[in-house]
Amino acid sequence: MSTRVAEQADALCNLAHWAAARGWVPATSGNFSVRDPANGHIYISCSGLDKGRMTVADLLELDAQGRVVSGSGKPSAESGLHVVVYRRRPRMHAIAHVHTIWNTLLSARCVDAGRVEITGYELLKALSGVESHTHAERIPVIANTQDYSTLTRELEEALETNPQTHGVLLSAHGLYTWGTSVVEARRHLEALEFLFEVECRRLMPQP
Amino acid sequence: MSTRVAEQADALCNLAHWAAARGWVPATSGNFSVRDPANGHIYISCSGLDKGRMTVADLLELDAQGRVVSGSGKPSAESGLHVVVYRRRPRMHAIAHVHTIWNTLLSARCVDAGRVEITGYELLKALSGVESHTHAERIPVIANTQDYSTLTRELEEALETNPQTHGVLLSAHGLYTWGTSVVEARRHLEALEFLFEVECRRLMPQP
Amino acid sequence: MSTRVAEQADALCNLAHWAAARGWVPATSGNFSVRDPANGHIYISCSGLDKGRMTVADLLELDAQGRVVSGSGKPSAESGLHVVVYRRRPRMHAIAHVHTIWNTLLSARCVDAGRVEITGYELLKALSGVESHTHAERIPVIANTQDYSTLTRELEEALETNPQTHGVLLSAHGLYTWGTSVVEARRHLEALEFLFEVECRRLMPQP
Amino acid sequence: MSTRVAEQADALCNLAHWAAARGWVPATSGNFSVRDPANGHIYISCSGLDKGRMTVADLLELDAQGRVVSGSGKPSAESGLHVVVYRRRPRMHAIAHVHTIWNTLLSARCVDAGRVEITGYELLKALSGVESHTHAERIPVIANTQDYSTLTRELEEALETNPQTHGVLLSAHGLYTWGTSVVEARRHLEALEFLFEVECRRLMPQP
Repeated sequence: MSTRVAEQADALCNLAHWAAARGWVPATSGNFSVRDPANGHIYISCSGLDKGRMTVADLLELDAQGRVVSGSGKPSAESGLHVVVYRRRPRMHAIAHVHTIWNTLLSARCVDAGRVEITGYELLKALSGVESHTHAERIPVIANTQDYSTLTRELEEALETNPQTHGVLLSAHGLYTWGTSVVEARRHLEALEFLFEVECRRLMPQP
Repeated sequence: MSTRVAEQADALCNLAHWAAARGWVPATSGNFSVRDPANGHIYISCSGLDKGRMTVADLLELDAQGRVVSGSGKPSAESGLHVVVYRRRPRMHAIAHVHTIWNTLLSARCVDAGRVEITGYELLKALSGVESHTHAERIPVIANTQDYSTLTRELEEALETNPQTHGVLLSAHGLYTWGTSVVEARRHLEALEFLFEVECRRLMPQP
Repeated sequence: MSTRVAEQADALCNLAHWAAARGWVPATSGNFSVRDPANGHIYISCSGLDKGRMTVADLLELDAQGRVVSGSGKPSAESGLHVVVYRRRPRMHAIAHVHTIWNTLLSARCVDAGRVEITGYELLKALSGVESHTHAERIPVIANTQDYSTLTRELEEALETNPQTHGVLLSAHGLYTWGTSVVEARRHLEALEFLFEVECRRLMPQP
Repeated sequence: MSTRVAEQADALCNLAHWAAARGWVPATSGNFSVRDPANGHIYISCSGLDKGRMTVADLLELDAQGRVVSGSGKPSAESGLHVVVYRRRPRMHAIAHVHTIWNTLLSARCVDAGRVEITGYELLKALSGVESHTHAERIPVIANTQDYSTLTRELEEALETNPQTHGVLLSAHGLYTWGTSVVEARRHLEALEFLFEVECRRLMPQP
């Protein structure tokens, strides 16, 4: 592991602890990864881990196709989704996946529409490349399934069809978001979850 | 106390502190126990204890019938419910009982139906043996009473009638959940409380 | 200050910090006191204090009539309400007054009825002397006013008319609760605030 | 930097950390400043900073017209709004700007009315100069825009038209509040955010 990747892996553990303290990765859910720009290898949290205690030793090293290169622990069933995000977003080098109250409620409500559209909030400007609150962030919502080949394919399509999106929701499941670095992935995570909570509180009591 | 049980008792105290920090055992409510697989003895928090400060010294040792074997402090009136859970779930060795805002609201709302049924959420997979979000978790809701012989009998029936359930709710009172270890009990606790909050927010408009 | 009172004053500061961490005494609101059983003197937080940083040195000593005996800092305008509670509840030796989201909402909603009545919750048993969830806790709600002589008189009447109540609400203002010790006052505070939140969430979206 | 200003800058960092811990400055949003009464210079958080880690070294020194005098880092686009507040409120020497769930919801709801009016709460007395819960705090709500010259002008008008207000809201964006010192600015911030939450929960059904 290069120094740069080791620093990112450390930052990733801090991000995991921070998310755990907010209740965003309950009951060992969620996962986190970084990618080494040198060889495309992915360092990802193993399955069944309490993210509040994640250390660099809990990361598995995968190659760019998702095969385990080193590390102990069982790969998460969702490792393949990280592989897809990295393939379709070549500039991104960190991914966060969380299960929160608000992304669960909002994704379940919007799965039939196929997307969540958020506009009008100043905090949208925390998303890289967004320069105005008038921006409409369109986040695809994929119907959840245990068939990971379907999920992988639909995630790939969603990323292709929505080149501007900063995240993808799986319905009643959670959010995938990313960044060029752990710092940017955390900023996107925090901004999107804030926006989900505000939108959910504004919209939801109505049927 | 064997080394294995001592480790579980330590983990139980950490679980109690974690639950207290979330406001899940307010005003000395709730209780926690582990069982020694060697002799079936139960180590359980005594009555009237601030769970945020629970230590191993605050645990009472009970035999498998619930009689005090050692320890100071008054046994909780609900010790008998732990005895019943351990009897009906021979593979389980840790129990958590908590009073939360969301389990109180949801159990009061669903007591007439006699159960809470939760389906469609990815986080259901945090419950041992559940492999899909399509699983329907049916959690019995027992009408609360101060008649502990009735409560004990109804809990026993609920456990018998619902061999798959990962928890039992007492209406406007709280949740009982369990695991083969403290780690598993905590995972079940965190997953169920997340699901209760999501369901409650989806079903009941809030201020 | 006797050793017993010094211990209670220390415990009172811990209670203040704990309440501050929960956001229950925002913007220097709220106040806390203990009474010396030996001479009836009251040790009470001074006005304008950030309760998250309260120390024993921030307490004013008042005599049983509320006159300052020692200590620096300005007495709170609400000191007289503490004097009344101690006079009408001779066995009580600690008082907590907090401003929370839920006691504000609930007291504003129930001021016309003149009281909040809470029944059916297991957590009622955390209130001293209550042995069943079927207990109906009737908490008087006094219309808020800046006329402290009126407020004092109405508090005195409320305490006389409701000898069993564990607290009194001032509408859109806050809760007064008490105990024989700081431990008991904190248990009553935590239980009542839990019950206010549950009741508010159950009742309020309806007009 | 004089000793007095250095102390205020330290207090400002503590305020920023405290706000960050509450989720009030998500995703590097928000900003904070103090003014030196000696020369009118402003010390303000630079752009893109995680406010949970803000140190005095992260402050830029601006002159009274908003030009950078010293410090590294990029000035925030909203520095000009601080300049306007200090110009129109000559006695004020600290400013806090935060993005919260409740100020976002409430300002979006009230932008057409042009203001939020809050009355009847005891906590209004935490605002300097307010002596009764019957006070009606009228907080102007300015429509958000990325045109900072418009925003600056409208803020200036709002401050002129509402000489008594303790804050100004930008719709779906956030709150500006201030004080003669960091202590007072924090008290105003905490009181206003409490009042926004109570009002929002009273007015808008939530999930």
